[in-house]
Amino acid sequence: MWICPTEYECDETVTVAHGGGGRLMHELLADIIGPILDDEELCKSDDAAVIPQLLGALALTTDSFVVQPLFFPGGDIGSLAIHGTINDLAMRGARPLYITVGSIIEEGLPRNTLLSIFRSLASAARESGVRIVAGDTKVVERGRGDKLFLNTTGVGVVETELPITPTRIAPGDRIIISGDIGRHAIAVMAARASLNFRQPVLSDSTPLWATVRALLDTGSDIHAMRDITRGGLAAVVNECSQMAGCDITLEEDAIPITPAVRHASELLGLDPLHLACEGRFIVAVSEADSESVLEVLTTITPENGPSIIGIVNSTVGDGETPTKPRRNRVIMRTPFGGARYVGIPTGEVLPRIC
Amino acid sequence: MWICPTEYECDETVTVAHGGGGRLMHELLADIIGPILDDEELCKSDDAAVIPQLLGALALTTDSFVVQPLFFPGGDIGSLAIHGTINDLAMRGARPLYITVGSIIEEGLPRNTLLSIFRSLASAARESGVRIVAGDTKVVERGRGDKLFLNTTGVGVVETELPITPTRIAPGDRIIISGDIGRHAIAVMAARASLNFRQPVLSDSTPLWATVRALLDTGSDIHAMRDITRGGLAAVVNECSQMAGCDITLEEDAIPITPAVRHASELLGLDPLHLACEGRFIVAVSEADSESVLEVLTTITPENGPSIIGIVNSTVGDGETPTKPRRNRVIMRTPFGGARYVGIPTGEVLPRIC
Repeated sequence: MWICPTEYECDETVTVAHGGGGRLMHELLADIIGPILDDEELCKSDDAAVIPQLLGALALTTDSFVVQPLFFPGGDIGSLAIHGTINDLAMRGARPLYITVGSIIEEGLPRNTLLSIFRSLASAARESGVRIVAGDTKVVERGRGDKLFLNTTGVGVVETELPITPTRIAPGDRIIISGDIGRHAIAVMAARASLNFRQPVLSDSTPLWATVRALLDTGSDIHAMRDITRGGLAAVVNECSQMAGCDITLEEDAIPITPAVRHASELLGLDPLHLACEGRFIVAVSEADSESVLEVLTTITPENGPSIIGIVNSTVGDGETPTKPRRNRVIMRTPFGGARYVGIPTGEVLPRIC
Repeated sequence: MWICPTEYECDETVTVAHGGGGRLMHELLADIIGPILDDEELCKSDDAAVIPQLLGALALTTDSFVVQPLFFPGGDIGSLAIHGTINDLAMRGARPLYITVGSIIEEGLPRNTLLSIFRSLASAARESGVRIVAGDTKVVERGRGDKLFLNTTGVGVVETELPITPTRIAPGDRIIISGDIGRHAIAVMAARASLNFRQPVLSDSTPLWATVRALLDTGSDIHAMRDITRGGLAAVVNECSQMAGCDITLEEDAIPITPAVRHASELLGLDPLHLACEGRFIVAVSEADSESVLEVLTTITPENGPSIIGIVNSTVGDGETPTKPRRNRVIMRTPFGGARYVGIPTGEVLPRIC
């Protein structure tokens, strides 16, 4: 059974006064956040961090994190915020270098909770060689927030010659998935509803840059990469098909799903294709390069079961008029020889999973 | 009398489903936020924006905005978020170029409110030549947020040879203020408490980069700049004295405060030195260059009453042991020949003014 580590252990809490720019806020930053993040530039407390010139095109991404609860099996909002931002940069072929952290704290948050989350955040950043160079802290009154919201914004340097973006997806491309889907959503859901599965499902939250760099090292001409987050695999593949202007056909039995996630999904009435991950991605690459991409993924994380799950169809368009929406569909072939369309979920499948 | 523009006009609201990565979220982004922000890179909806290589050292800053109410005389959370981030970059002598926007929306926020705020945000960015290249939207349940929180993170290029930072402040430096203090805090306070002053106080929220660039053009060796935000002038000057390791003496009657702000402060029992601004800053510069800095400020915004308000003392240190805290004090000389210490406020003077 997974036990939430530190969330309610301490009487000492953050108050609105800690957000006021005065002495208490200086103490909060100097005593808790500064020493944990421990970055020379951050600790200067200047209005903005100054970093040396970067060589190459830059990638820039921002994400707010409102995951509830703050701690879940396999991670917490701190590590999640770092992984999420690293992964968005990695998906453009960019090496993550600098991250900024904005915190919106609800009055009453135990200081221990904050401490624990910032330790996790700092260690996730360090693990990926990313520096946290700027931060901001706001406190809102009790009932005007929900314990802690984080924003992380990342800057990276693009390390590819050709852009990596779904508009480069071409007919015949193979769609490769880096591993099994849905663990993050199920882990958060289980923590939220205090479900105790016999075999606990751990979040797949993980940084992806090292894996992406290894893929680039193969020399494969990767057309697109997308990490599978909100909306799940269904949303991500649909976005790719729309941006590329191509139908994409997936093979249902090629999509890796662990028995634990499959059973939990059935229990909760959820479609695994709609479940968010925080450490899985798809790659669109030409057929010629698809085997070397799969080989690298299989070498790095064989336990995740990377797999070629689909193909970009070569029949594009049907002479439609420009006013008629293009039919950029995602088609799922079932193991029984059938086929169905995969739509993007309408609204919220699982609220606040990131 | 100031009337809040659009906050409660519309029945159509944002729901949790809009934050789920599905069809409704795509509609929110495509229908409302995308067209208003209207940036080519943003509208590509890639995981991260890619921008061309930047020449020079970079400045990076992040800020979350939780101002309450969302609209106040002279501004709103949208323009405020842009100005705040531009100004933090400008204080390091950096030209603001790119901004990312993260939104945390509370379920039930009228779509019109969101529309109005994003219009204001987009127009503030355009006015300063800044591109909004990446964004993120989250929705939290009713009662778990407070209408709208924004995070803006900015990237700029440093346009000075020598670093601009309080550690470069030297004895003899003059402290120059760019204009009258406290209008932003009083404007927000008045809107929050529905106070109707005979003469309404408008927020001083404004972008400062153009002014800073004009100061740099004088060739003055500017040692430090700080915009006056949370904690007010008292906090900012204390931060400078601490970082510089010098006492700073201010002249009380040189500090520009409008009669309206002075009266409102008296009425509300507030010290104007603790009031936040969002478009005022102090400059620390050698005596030799102080007149040319003042001249530029007076040329650009004579109506704000820029003024030399203090001097960095030349008597530094007294042979204290390293374990004893340095006495880096801010001393205020009163018009009556007296003197007092100015501390930084302990906690929250006015919560959520930015």
